[in-house]
Amino acid sequence: MQPFVYTVAVAAAPPSLQDNTGDIDQLKKALSAVSGLDVRLPLFRLAHIAARFRQCGFQGTALLNDLPAGPMLVDFFAAQPARLPAMALDLGTTHLEATLINLTDGQLLARSNRENSQIEFGADILTRIHYAARDNGLARLHGAIVAAINELAADLAAQAGEKEENIRALAVSGNTTMVHFFLRLDPRHLCREPYIPLVNSPDPFLAHEIGLALHPAAPVWVMPSVGSYFGGDLISGIVASGMDEQEETCMLIDVDTNAEVVIGNREWLIACAGAAGPALEGGVARMGMRAGPGAIEHVTIEPQTLALSWQTIDNEKPRGICGSGIIDLVAGLYLARIIDIRGKFRRQRCPDRFVDTGEGPAFVVVPAGEAAGGEPVVLGQVDLDAMMRSKAAMYAILTTLISQVGLDFADLHRIYVAGAFGRHIDPARAITLGMLPDLPLTTFQPIGNSSLAGAERVLLDRGGRERCLQLVNRITYLELNVNQEFMIRFSGSRFIPHTDTSLFPSVPVFSETDPSA
Amino acid sequence: MQPFVYTVAVAAAPPSLQDNTGDIDQLKKALSAVSGLDVRLPLFRLAHIAARFRQCGFQGTALLNDLPAGPMLVDFFAAQPARLPAMALDLGTTHLEATLINLTDGQLLARSNRENSQIEFGADILTRIHYAARDNGLARLHGAIVAAINELAADLAAQAGEKEENIRALAVSGNTTMVHFFLRLDPRHLCREPYIPLVNSPDPFLAHEIGLALHPAAPVWVMPSVGSYFGGDLISGIVASGMDEQEETCMLIDVDTNAEVVIGNREWLIACAGAAGPALEGGVARMGMRAGPGAIEHVTIEPQTLALSWQTIDNEKPRGICGSGIIDLVAGLYLARIIDIRGKFRRQRCPDRFVDTGEGPAFVVVPAGEAAGGEPVVLGQVDLDAMMRSKAAMYAILTTLISQVGLDFADLHRIYVAGAFGRHIDPARAITLGMLPDLPLTTFQPIGNSSLAGAERVLLDRGGRERCLQLVNRITYLELNVNQEFMIRFSGSRFIPHTDTSLFPSVPVFSETDPSA
Repeated sequence: MQPFVYTVAVAAAPPSLQDNTGDIDQLKKALSAVSGLDVRLPLFRLAHIAARFRQCGFQGTALLNDLPAGPMLVDFFAAQPARLPAMALDLGTTHLEATLINLTDGQLLARSNRENSQIEFGADILTRIHYAARDNGLARLHGAIVAAINELAADLAAQAGEKEENIRALAVSGNTTMVHFFLRLDPRHLCREPYIPLVNSPDPFLAHEIGLALHPAAPVWVMPSVGSYFGGDLISGIVASGMDEQEETCMLIDVDTNAEVVIGNREWLIACAGAAGPALEGGVARMGMRAGPGAIEHVTIEPQTLALSWQTIDNEKPRGICGSGIIDLVAGLYLARIIDIRGKFRRQRCPDRFVDTGEGPAFVVVPAGEAAGGEPVVLGQVDLDAMMRSKAAMYAILTTLISQVGLDFADLHRIYVAGAFGRHIDPARAITLGMLPDLPLTTFQPIGNSSLAGAERVLLDRGGRERCLQLVNRITYLELNVNQEFMIRFSGSRFIPHTDTSLFPSVPVFSETDPSA
Repeated sequence: MQPFVYTVAVAAAPPSLQDNTGDIDQLKKALSAVSGLDVRLPLFRLAHIAARFRQCGFQGTALLNDLPAGPMLVDFFAAQPARLPAMALDLGTTHLEATLINLTDGQLLARSNRENSQIEFGADILTRIHYAARDNGLARLHGAIVAAINELAADLAAQAGEKEENIRALAVSGNTTMVHFFLRLDPRHLCREPYIPLVNSPDPFLAHEIGLALHPAAPVWVMPSVGSYFGGDLISGIVASGMDEQEETCMLIDVDTNAEVVIGNREWLIACAGAAGPALEGGVARMGMRAGPGAIEHVTIEPQTLALSWQTIDNEKPRGICGSGIIDLVAGLYLARIIDIRGKFRRQRCPDRFVDTGEGPAFVVVPAGEAAGGEPVVLGQVDLDAMMRSKAAMYAILTTLISQVGLDFADLHRIYVAGAFGRHIDPARAITLGMLPDLPLTTFQPIGNSSLAGAERVLLDRGGRERCLQLVNRITYLELNVNQEFMIRFSGSRFIPHTDTSLFPSVPVFSETDPSA
């Protein structure tokens, strides 16, 4: 365990007429004697470190950045500092989540989050990529990110009773486009065939090089990406799940703007990504929302009485419905036969539960009187169609990937489900819809914000950092945009649970002519 | 021969859907395949290099800085650039001398020099060190150097038909104090016992880190020093003379503000420095001046007729007298018996050649009518006394050092004499004075501006750079300030040629009672 920034205690002989060694040279020699390391230091830290070394009587604690090119001396203290706060950041397209951890013991010092203020330039990534091409567009997008990180850093520091300039390291985990914006790199090629990033594995740099209000010599680690559609957040997920070190074959599913999927073990790893996300993230449905306070995260419908109950995050009055809520709802609508296997409303099953909107009929989940803001929470046919496309895409991605490696889903030891999606989703309902494979429920394991967890890991452990860089070369990326098999599988997945019902033995199949409804 | 900045031709496959490697990662891989090197690049060059790599169709010529921590990718061209201009600088206390050389073939492109504009803050180093302690003092001294270097760079570039931002590297050779000013490091400890520099071997950095108007990613090499009184200019001298690689034992003498002397061979090197310089450099004598146009550089006095002739640099009207001129003059005065062995005027030898000044009698070298500015060029007893102290110090330094290693002067294969002092001095006259040892004149070899030559060498050759860093640790430094033997030898050297005349068999010895005068 070599943290990204670490201390080494040193003691040197005070200067004398018998030894002309310069102060900094003396300190380097002492560090070399203790650690065997050839240490370098950036020019802008030289005067400060030399002054501190003298003030401390030529002994104390050196602070070093552990960089791939070798250790970099960045500060000097009289004694071992009690804390070395470092910031881990999940740089999401819509949301930023960060923690402050103490590198000396790995303890969590603070936690914070905020909206990605780039949203003012475009809600989705593609709009922002286009915005970047405008005059100063890239500079504004970059500036918005840096400002947001600085605000998060100030908040984390305040919570922990520190100053933000005492944050000694930063690890950033995000998708490839967000990383381009963060590094102020032209993102235009990310959305143009053949979709090649400007860089996948940027070298670490120092906070001052990019205007971050952390300690100016804080090293910044940017989690490497595999390609335009497989970002550092996924590398974080792999590291956080540990699937790359396991003997058993596992799968990792991360649903963000895209659905990104990895399958493999310590011997091999294959990944792909596809546009399955929006509906599942709550980004498409009219009443959709991110998993946050007031979002309906769970819905049950009693199949016979059609009695509907729901649960919101933080038990607030419902303001919308998030991805897991939509999955629950649609699965419930299917089992209650309010929708058919094509995902079309069967309004005759409960006519009084529907209202007419400008976009056609909509199912009322929460009447206006019970909802926050006085608007009913509804699900329209348009929303349902988007959901059906998303679930079909998801299953098509999973089957394309598993068949690519010649395995069956039953061969999977574990399916890790990352992020808010993984935390809130009920796998049983996703299986009902035919979105996730029909496996024992214990196979599915939510792993929380693994993008953030990966960033925390690399702050604490050089092995983790090296592992991330190696992962980029270990992962085979399967491009679905040119994959015919994927398109065929997608068509077969546009029914509930599937055209081939034998794939989902646990899901009830209804005949359309069944007289029970 | 690996220059400080060099090119590598690379060709990568254009991006495709089958390969997600990022542009920069692709370029790094191609470089690794060609050179086997793990290349890093600074963040501020990333966007530019990636854009150029694409524009050039993923093939062309990469530009790399050869740094101790490994190669750093800093630019990309469609084709091998015809020139890679790099600047070598002798950063003297009073004078800056620079050349522009082409790293691709080692050819000289331009040469320039200027006064050190720090002189406005103090003519000598000690005054400037005190000035540095004032508010903004160090910043002003630093700024003056950077501005002067930028002006030199602009001049060099203009001469070579280049822009200064196309200067791709800089090597700086100077004394330890000048290096501290250049790097904006507090120089206060340099003149306080135990005289320890803040740093002897600073790591290379990039031009933009210090406000230099060269290419922002131009690497800056600062010649390492051995101590406060043994600077990088001396390391340059050793490298330029080649004495550190020779089997025979040689000596290097550099007279700047101090006299700095090195003795040794490829097995061992010992050095010391002492305050022998001012009078020899022309800095103390009332009519003394730097070796430049109008300075009297040679004087002869016919011993019998006392006829005096002189020669100025560039044959201009005499304005003063430089170090070599003073040595010639005093040796001539001695041989003509116008001064005695103690260096005191014997006015009775030629009363009409003397004038009286506020500081006592002075010998007229050039009458007012023949001199520039209408003032006679004279040598006073005060000047003569200073000269005697300087010559005594010089010989005491040399004898202390040679006895320290258990050798005689006759064991020396060569004595290299650096700088303007070496270029202008006539060793025979210096021997007459007892300043240099009484050796065959072929032993003495002037080596010109070896500080500049060393800077040029490290720009062109990695071996030279590594050699400089190793030299710092190879050289044993003898501190004369606490050396009793030196003080005894100094006293014995305060006569012409010496109290022990057997040391100077080639120099005539006159009895004070000799009736010939």
